[in-house]
Amino acid sequence: MSIDSIVDWLQHPPASVSDQFRQSALQHQAQLTKPPGALGRLEEIAVQLAAMQHTLHPNVDHVQIAIFAADHGVAAENISAFPQSVTCEMIKNFAAGGAAINVLAHALGAQLEIINLGTVHPTGRLNDVRHYHLGPGTANFLHAAAMSGHQLAAALNAGRICAEQAQVNKKQLLIVGEMGIGNTTSAAALASLLLNMPPAQLAGAGTGLDSTGIAHKVQVIEQALALHTPHIHTPLEALRRVGGFEIAALTGAYVRAAQLGLPVLVDGFISTVAALTAERICIGSKRWQLYAHQSPENGHAHILQALDARPLIDLGMRLGEASGAAVALNLLRLACALHNQMATFSAAQVSTKQR
Amino acid sequence: MSIDSIVDWLQHPPASVSDQFRQSALQHQAQLTKPPGALGRLEEIAVQLAAMQHTLHPNVDHVQIAIFAADHGVAAENISAFPQSVTCEMIKNFAAGGAAINVLAHALGAQLEIINLGTVHPTGRLNDVRHYHLGPGTANFLHAAAMSGHQLAAALNAGRICAEQAQVNKKQLLIVGEMGIGNTTSAAALASLLLNMPPAQLAGAGTGLDSTGIAHKVQVIEQALALHTPHIHTPLEALRRVGGFEIAALTGAYVRAAQLGLPVLVDGFISTVAALTAERICIGSKRWQLYAHQSPENGHAHILQALDARPLIDLGMRLGEASGAAVALNLLRLACALHNQMATFSAAQVSTKQR
Repeated sequence: MSIDSIVDWLQHPPASVSDQFRQSALQHQAQLTKPPGALGRLEEIAVQLAAMQHTLHPNVDHVQIAIFAADHGVAAENISAFPQSVTCEMIKNFAAGGAAINVLAHALGAQLEIINLGTVHPTGRLNDVRHYHLGPGTANFLHAAAMSGHQLAAALNAGRICAEQAQVNKKQLLIVGEMGIGNTTSAAALASLLLNMPPAQLAGAGTGLDSTGIAHKVQVIEQALALHTPHIHTPLEALRRVGGFEIAALTGAYVRAAQLGLPVLVDGFISTVAALTAERICIGSKRWQLYAHQSPENGHAHILQALDARPLIDLGMRLGEASGAAVALNLLRLACALHNQMATFSAAQVSTKQR
Repeated sequence: MSIDSIVDWLQHPPASVSDQFRQSALQHQAQLTKPPGALGRLEEIAVQLAAMQHTLHPNVDHVQIAIFAADHGVAAENISAFPQSVTCEMIKNFAAGGAAINVLAHALGAQLEIINLGTVHPTGRLNDVRHYHLGPGTANFLHAAAMSGHQLAAALNAGRICAEQAQVNKKQLLIVGEMGIGNTTSAAALASLLLNMPPAQLAGAGTGLDSTGIAHKVQVIEQALALHTPHIHTPLEALRRVGGFEIAALTGAYVRAAQLGLPVLVDGFISTVAALTAERICIGSKRWQLYAHQSPENGHAHILQALDARPLIDLGMRLGEASGAAVALNLLRLACALHNQMATFSAAQVSTKQR
């Protein structure tokens, strides 16, 4: 059975964004008591959300955050500044509430779910962590495909379920993030295949490699691509051969969110690679993607450019685990509040521009 | 009586920022469960606030926002896209709760105060608006000094009182903003004097001038500077001759906040010119200034550079009334939450970087 038949849900088209509500929102913005355009990108964001949510009153108060964690076989190649045990340790940290995303989700009043797709070391049962047992991490893609077709389908499906639950729970925005030692290597390899761009332009420091470490990482990716490229003819096959469980789950979540008409706020480097993969698998998905932040990770700018995406903030964040998206969320909320609550020129009896 | 003797409080030195707490905060950041530096500027902000607030647990939950409004005589020269009546109309809009800053302050749970320093048209009594009657706007600085010495002293004092009240009310951060048709012209003229830079590099579209309008605005400033420059030997005299009541109030607030050791979050173009003026009047004030956003207003980048200031966000906002600072406030709050609440490597039993 081919992968395509297992994951035929990926072929459904994205929901439509409303041009009518976009126009109404633009007209409304022009009537608010401020010089036209003076709120800059906050105006654009409110208009975009109005069009996505098919409403005059966009709102992102109710937000689901989900973190997908998994291990990577390629970590055996010494491509990370942190030991592989950190994936498992960080899942426990998420469960205990001590990671950055826990603090941010709490501060934002957003619901947070942790999903373990498969780690080398078992984490044991943990409160509030959902477990999919896809395997003890992916295979080392330097020597073999990272995932079997069934593993890929299951990982994509984990993301699909996440998006569907967010919609059932009436969430107005979905943020998905990742944790997995080695996953910038996987993401860079995947981006290299999708963009047909040399790994050296896409691989970076990750959690903190020095220049020697980065050079080694690039070499590992180049060697892996020499093995896989001749066999890759679809984005899905690229994802299966060099992706990761969590990258596939993010991809599935982005595709399904677009199909359901649920806006997503995309985090940093790895998430953006997953968003690009989603767009390549299900064209038009990107109309449902908002971009949170510019990462200093080498290559993020290239991937954003390929998606014609312009992130909201640039604060030098490079943590992953959806932290950049969480930090940018308030900007969306304030954009909505301004759009919905400001007085109009006529209601406030304020004179308009004279020339 | 010279201005200097009326405002001798300006000569008091700024409070000191704690290097000890800065070091402790840096050490604490290094122990949090994230790769070193992975939270980028959020780490810097938390460390800066810890040093300013002399604490291990920086906090900006309690924030005072004050908007100073005033009219400008130079508005007679047709240098704004909006009629002068808008200053008064917007004060009424602030009082009624319909302006952008009302929406933002409410969303942020920040206290908002509106201060009318003097407008051409009387606003009448308004709820929750404090009135200083410094005059019906400033004089037209194309022909005369904008303010008398007493007006300048009173405007500076209005800012001083604002900072002192914020401290008495145990606010942890002060945001001051402005409203006044014509005030980008005044601010550009003042910056031109302080930086010894041509007006053409500092004057911009303001609320929405076209290129012809900007060229005229530049010409008005050049003509005014030809009149005033020979008589200006201090920053205070520059402020008196081409400034505005609200720009002077912001300057006074920034100086006093620094003297009291109260951090300020500086808004956009006009606020940054006031912050520069504060630094020139009371050297070291800038150590208490955090910068919120980059405005597209021509000249903002030059003034930021002179202050060695790097704003947090760049969203194309150019509204004034402290809106950019309000939008950036959440970044400070999240930076503090992460600093105070994340688990350490040892407490969470997470492995540290291996190389």
